[in-house]
Amino acid sequence: MNKLHQLRQTITDQGLAVAYISDPMTIKYLTGFYSDPVERVLALLVFADHDPFLFAPALEVEAIKQSGWAYPVYGYLDHEQPYQMIADQVKRRVADPQNWGAELGFLTVARLRALQENFPHAKFDFDLTPTIEQMRLLKDDQEIATLKEAGKWADFALEVGFKAVHPGVSEQAVAAELEYALKQHGIMNMSFDTLIQAGAHAAEPHGATSNRLIKEGDLVLFDLGTVYDGYISDVSRTVAVGEITKQQQEIYQVCLEAQLTAQAAAKPGMTAAELDAIARQVIEKAGYGEYFIHRLGHGMGMSEHEFPSIMEGNDLQLQPGMCFSIEPGIYMPGIAGVRIEDCVHITPTGCEPFTHTTKALQTL
Amino acid sequence: MNKLHQLRQTITDQGLAVAYISDPMTIKYLTGFYSDPVERVLALLVFADHDPFLFAPALEVEAIKQSGWAYPVYGYLDHEQPYQMIADQVKRRVADPQNWGAELGFLTVARLRALQENFPHAKFDFDLTPTIEQMRLLKDDQEIATLKEAGKWADFALEVGFKAVHPGVSEQAVAAELEYALKQHGIMNMSFDTLIQAGAHAAEPHGATSNRLIKEGDLVLFDLGTVYDGYISDVSRTVAVGEITKQQQEIYQVCLEAQLTAQAAAKPGMTAAELDAIARQVIEKAGYGEYFIHRLGHGMGMSEHEFPSIMEGNDLQLQPGMCFSIEPGIYMPGIAGVRIEDCVHITPTGCEPFTHTTKALQTL
Repeated sequence: MNKLHQLRQTITDQGLAVAYISDPMTIKYLTGFYSDPVERVLALLVFADHDPFLFAPALEVEAIKQSGWAYPVYGYLDHEQPYQMIADQVKRRVADPQNWGAELGFLTVARLRALQENFPHAKFDFDLTPTIEQMRLLKDDQEIATLKEAGKWADFALEVGFKAVHPGVSEQAVAAELEYALKQHGIMNMSFDTLIQAGAHAAEPHGATSNRLIKEGDLVLFDLGTVYDGYISDVSRTVAVGEITKQQQEIYQVCLEAQLTAQAAAKPGMTAAELDAIARQVIEKAGYGEYFIHRLGHGMGMSEHEFPSIMEGNDLQLQPGMCFSIEPGIYMPGIAGVRIEDCVHITPTGCEPFTHTTKALQTL
Repeated sequence: MNKLHQLRQTITDQGLAVAYISDPMTIKYLTGFYSDPVERVLALLVFADHDPFLFAPALEVEAIKQSGWAYPVYGYLDHEQPYQMIADQVKRRVADPQNWGAELGFLTVARLRALQENFPHAKFDFDLTPTIEQMRLLKDDQEIATLKEAGKWADFALEVGFKAVHPGVSEQAVAAELEYALKQHGIMNMSFDTLIQAGAHAAEPHGATSNRLIKEGDLVLFDLGTVYDGYISDVSRTVAVGEITKQQQEIYQVCLEAQLTAQAAAKPGMTAAELDAIARQVIEKAGYGEYFIHRLGHGMGMSEHEFPSIMEGNDLQLQPGMCFSIEPGIYMPGIAGVRIEDCVHITPTGCEPFTHTTKALQTL
């Protein structure tokens, strides 16, 4: 079902007069057009019984038309009053709209008040944030295809990064190499700051890629992702530099078993909490439970902050089209950190990963 | 004056019981600690007659303490109720706070409602966004020093970028080279997506760095910036590749004269509008006024979206410590685009730029 049509169904079902959408990522999701207007106003207005329209900075109007948007788009100049102009257009369609839906998890108080000034009797009580989150939870075939493409570039980045690892090189220099190679192929944006952590540094959950030098005997943790046509990839691998200790080998193998077991088990009908427990039990049984200090995974798609959350207490049943990470980790302070992660999509019978870099321990 | 102390003065003057600060950049500005909590809750509570406190995800508490924060910090775990915990701490200090100040230009409606649930009789009418913007408008010596350091890296990036330009190389490949060189020096983040546009592409105000190949006779526009310790740089230069036409030379020289004239004229006491007009008149007099389609400059510091805005209609008087861009541009559709930009800080007698790359036309 067309995404805009799906939103109109919610509008009808909830008896809303109009839906006000202003998160640029939601606008991209519903219209295909993406732009971050920063302090300017970009909004999509959707009605039950009228065509939707976009309202945008004047500079964006041409790009919106060229993007294939088939409905009206109205531009405003910096000295004009955007909320009054939006109100004028809304009133041409619905004379006195009472019940509005808006993304209350995105819309700021100041902007809501600017809207309310033009509709003093309207109610802005219906929160569309959960509606949109629910829609974005299930990816369609085209979204899955784009996520696969983003995943290929993550595999490529790991390949380049592994080649750059040797004793004496800094974490930052390795990040520089792999991002450089991506940009040479036109992949200009990472989905988050590339994380490369060596040795004991990898056991710090809030560390960042630093100027620390990688040395013989380190486990080196990579966590990175690329953006491809508005969708992301996200992958983690941990590799050994030269000879590592028995303990490092053991935590690697335990983490790997947890990851493989969970990825083999993921399928429609089980709950997110059950999947988390499957990985957690492997690590607990091996005696490392206290060092696995985060949930098993997060939803992903246009960003890495989507649903479903794969964690204890989440009774959501997995369904085909859900996309999320499976990323157990073992972090032993002062010693080493290991995390192994693929993002997957649930299929009718199980799950398929978006990344394919080997998970067997690699020694560089 | 200490920045937190300055905010407490506003709280006293406005008769507020408490100020609720949640923009991570404002928290960095007031406390020195930066972290983007994404969907989690990070808040700074400031009172007129009590010490402030930070409230943060439990994982951040150790980093906050190590950052030098001298007041209390309270952490919460993912399964706890952050707004109720904040309310408990507030009520220990002020039993029944009535008038709250909050950044209404940042706080979402959903989060305001979560706060209000815990303080059903309180008013959240006072908007601290303009207060904070006003504070951030004037940079102190330490901020200026950091901006100069960020500027040095922007100059370095241009130097590397210019060396990478030759006929047949893509805009993206040039961006890749200069970002690679920055990362090799540990400068891991750009302040915005690096913009490199060649030939007629530079006349498209909404273009992005593309896979278009640079060719002999192109003017190539660079607009880039780096992040250094939470502060940014932002610089634009336009360079020639081989021989260019008389018309290209003319628009370059007109744009350059506008930039140099404005930068030489900027000083305390004049208005932002007057400075914009000085540059605009140079371009209008030369007959290219219709191709200078944006304001002369924007404020900058921790981001490129600060005040003052250097534009028609802004009667704000320039003062020492204000930091902004001076960036006239001439965009002739189908032909070429030229923009030349330095960011400057106003001094007691004039202004000083943060970037020093030559503005004389360079032919590569």
